[in-house]
Amino acid sequence: MKEIRCDVLVIGGGPAGGVAAITAKEHHPDKRVLLIRKEEKQLVPCAIPYIFGDILGSSEKDVMSCAPVEKSGVETMVGEVLHIDKEAKRATTRDAVIFFDKLVIATGSVPFVHPSMKDATKIEGVFTVPKEKETIDRLKAYAETRERIAIVGSGFIGLEIGLEFAKSGKNVTLIDGVDHVLNTAFDKELAAEAEKLAEEAGVTLELGEFVDEVLEKNGRVSGVKLRNGKVIESEMVILATGYKPNTELAERSDIQLTCYGAIWVDEYMRTQNHDIFAVGDCAARRDFITREYSRVMLASTSAAEARAAGTSLYKLKYIKGFNGTIAIFSTVVMDRAFASAGVTEMQAREQKLDIVTGTFTGMNRHPATIPDATRQSVKLIAMNHSGRIIGGQIVGGPEVGELINIVGLIIEAKITIYTLLSLQVATHPLLTAAPTAYPIVKAAESIAKKME
Amino acid sequence: MKEIRCDVLVIGGGPAGGVAAITAKEHHPDKRVLLIRKEEKQLVPCAIPYIFGDILGSSEKDVMSCAPVEKSGVETMVGEVLHIDKEAKRATTRDAVIFFDKLVIATGSVPFVHPSMKDATKIEGVFTVPKEKETIDRLKAYAETRERIAIVGSGFIGLEIGLEFAKSGKNVTLIDGVDHVLNTAFDKELAAEAEKLAEEAGVTLELGEFVDEVLEKNGRVSGVKLRNGKVIESEMVILATGYKPNTELAERSDIQLTCYGAIWVDEYMRTQNHDIFAVGDCAARRDFITREYSRVMLASTSAAEARAAGTSLYKLKYIKGFNGTIAIFSTVVMDRAFASAGVTEMQAREQKLDIVTGTFTGMNRHPATIPDATRQSVKLIAMNHSGRIIGGQIVGGPEVGELINIVGLIIEAKITIYTLLSLQVATHPLLTAAPTAYPIVKAAESIAKKME
Repeated sequence: MKEIRCDVLVIGGGPAGGVAAITAKEHHPDKRVLLIRKEEKQLVPCAIPYIFGDILGSSEKDVMSCAPVEKSGVETMVGEVLHIDKEAKRATTRDAVIFFDKLVIATGSVPFVHPSMKDATKIEGVFTVPKEKETIDRLKAYAETRERIAIVGSGFIGLEIGLEFAKSGKNVTLIDGVDHVLNTAFDKELAAEAEKLAEEAGVTLELGEFVDEVLEKNGRVSGVKLRNGKVIESEMVILATGYKPNTELAERSDIQLTCYGAIWVDEYMRTQNHDIFAVGDCAARRDFITREYSRVMLASTSAAEARAAGTSLYKLKYIKGFNGTIAIFSTVVMDRAFASAGVTEMQAREQKLDIVTGTFTGMNRHPATIPDATRQSVKLIAMNHSGRIIGGQIVGGPEVGELINIVGLIIEAKITIYTLLSLQVATHPLLTAAPTAYPIVKAAESIAKKME
Repeated sequence: MKEIRCDVLVIGGGPAGGVAAITAKEHHPDKRVLLIRKEEKQLVPCAIPYIFGDILGSSEKDVMSCAPVEKSGVETMVGEVLHIDKEAKRATTRDAVIFFDKLVIATGSVPFVHPSMKDATKIEGVFTVPKEKETIDRLKAYAETRERIAIVGSGFIGLEIGLEFAKSGKNVTLIDGVDHVLNTAFDKELAAEAEKLAEEAGVTLELGEFVDEVLEKNGRVSGVKLRNGKVIESEMVILATGYKPNTELAERSDIQLTCYGAIWVDEYMRTQNHDIFAVGDCAARRDFITREYSRVMLASTSAAEARAAGTSLYKLKYIKGFNGTIAIFSTVVMDRAFASAGVTEMQAREQKLDIVTGTFTGMNRHPATIPDATRQSVKLIAMNHSGRIIGGQIVGGPEVGELINIVGLIIEAKITIYTLLSLQVATHPLLTAAPTAYPIVKAAESIAKKME
């Protein structure tokens, strides 16, 4: 067994591991920081769907650059940690023992497959969407010669992959037990617009009915049977039914997990052993509003956690500014951008939050005669008594990708609709809505009026 | 004389007047709200430069829609108020007397011309850029048959008009006494990129030398002479040297002005007579940071002020959320967007603020192989001791139009760089920078490191 010594060991080369390692090295330049990752080439996770269509076209174009890590002075190695000894402070791989002073676990997440579907994954032609190049390449190669593809799960990954295959001319059916696509992030009236666009792009939607069985014929997948008996024939089935924390190593190493299988951490990403940190999808998150455990998995949240861990390894250097996890997403459906932050109206009502909603629809340029002007709709969700904004959803042009981050900041900074009434924004004919009809302010105004 | 009675009279049909009238009516539906404006057709002010090129191509395409005002139940009339009697609460036009209970003055701004240039404006072929259709149409018609155009002033309007004429194939020279374009909003390293793009588009820059004289030949303008003796021949000269509050009416009516000619108002836009409000460019503004008078003129600030006035006419309904004016701008130079919020580094140093700056350059999509990915640079300016962000500048793709509004909110909400380190943002391959390299967070991080 090879013996390796370092000060800070980071396990995992995804966004969380990379940022944790870089931050650790930048803040502790005298320490030896070592990052160990399972694969030589790591994919940019959220761009995986675009490997299947024209936008990227190949997994090689989605390989995460190692440059930032290498430039920072972090050492890297490829290997799989099989066990962590907390007391002896060492991690063991097949052929090496790595001694560390501080450990950051960033093992990410793996596809979640419903127990009833476990056997189906063994059938030829059935795929999940893990974040590793080899499987993605196999999935892409398999799809190459197939015409009919069924995708189970209408969340971001399922919908994005479905759209890319449909744009490439394949016959795609998107199946989900819930009534609307992007169910966790959008209320039904906004989801309906995404559904219309997806159908126009050639995606067939089968919503509101769960999958009963994945069908097999001659050792290959032949289709999907729904609970109502309907059969969707397909040459290939992709299970895009979410992800779960990849914590087998942690569990095996007796590091405490929470109820949903993620590693327990405090606000500074410390496990119960303060020399061991966990960041990213493998670490437990708490909802910003309810403080309950949250299963939201987001690379940007992972990066924020990784920065907190990297600066807090030897002492708590910075008080954490924002606490808790807000769900904050964006995507593109054909030429429209969809984005969401915080809770949806449906979630708020389920959680019995006393809320008021407001919407505004305008144009994303001004005047509306600007050639690329397109419709932009904002929905805001506020607490009824304080006026504090707890959620928002936007549909519009590509600017929506950053517009939602204004809503995210409003939520994190606990800003109320009243404060927003005097918000000052930069507006420009070629870039934004009109100053007189800035959608976030107008939606806040409509809530203020309803609250009277 | 016709006698008209209303509850709320709004003078001015620009963004400030329109929003004030609509807000007043929405919050006081039983009141009769009357808006009086000078011109039948009001232009969208910030889109005026795009009338001169292909983007709009005609002033008709830049006419502000009356629909929101009309739909709201506000009555409108065309006319010019010549005098206000504060005690009798009446406004007089050429042929009518309007009695009001509450008055909102929103007379906007008019071109500022340096006293030494006053005579030059009388020469044929010399134009200023007022926000009224007739002059804009004359300017456009005059330019139609002219080849060489000199523009004095390299602020937003001067640069934007220069670019539009240059794109139409005209020979444009942009002249300014300051060393860099967009001088009030950008530090020189960012301005330099705008200058390079403008020059590539065919605009000749004459910076760092003031205009001595506008030259005349045969009753028409023939060029501009600089202080260093250099002569720039031109068939047309546009003076884009800023705007000043349009407060002749207020002054004539004995409404108190501040030192720079704007109407004195409190935070709720009340003049010293609480039945009379002033909003928009004609009202005095105070800088967010220094609390000194600020000459920044922005339609979005006007809209925020108008909302404050509209809800505060009869009682202060909402505590004002944000106080003071932050300068917050965006523009487009060829295919790049430039935006700025708060103070520049240069202004901060002039005002002897103890600051630290941080920059980050990355890509606006991730991975960088996404087809429309382009470089995105963020510069942040923070107070050295608290880490509070007081300014930011961004160059990048069109998303910059909303990205700067995140910086604006950070400034207004008094958020520090430490808080930003755990900011959660939505990121998406087709819409934003990578979660691991979100430019606002990375720039904040670079400041944090410098402060140690």
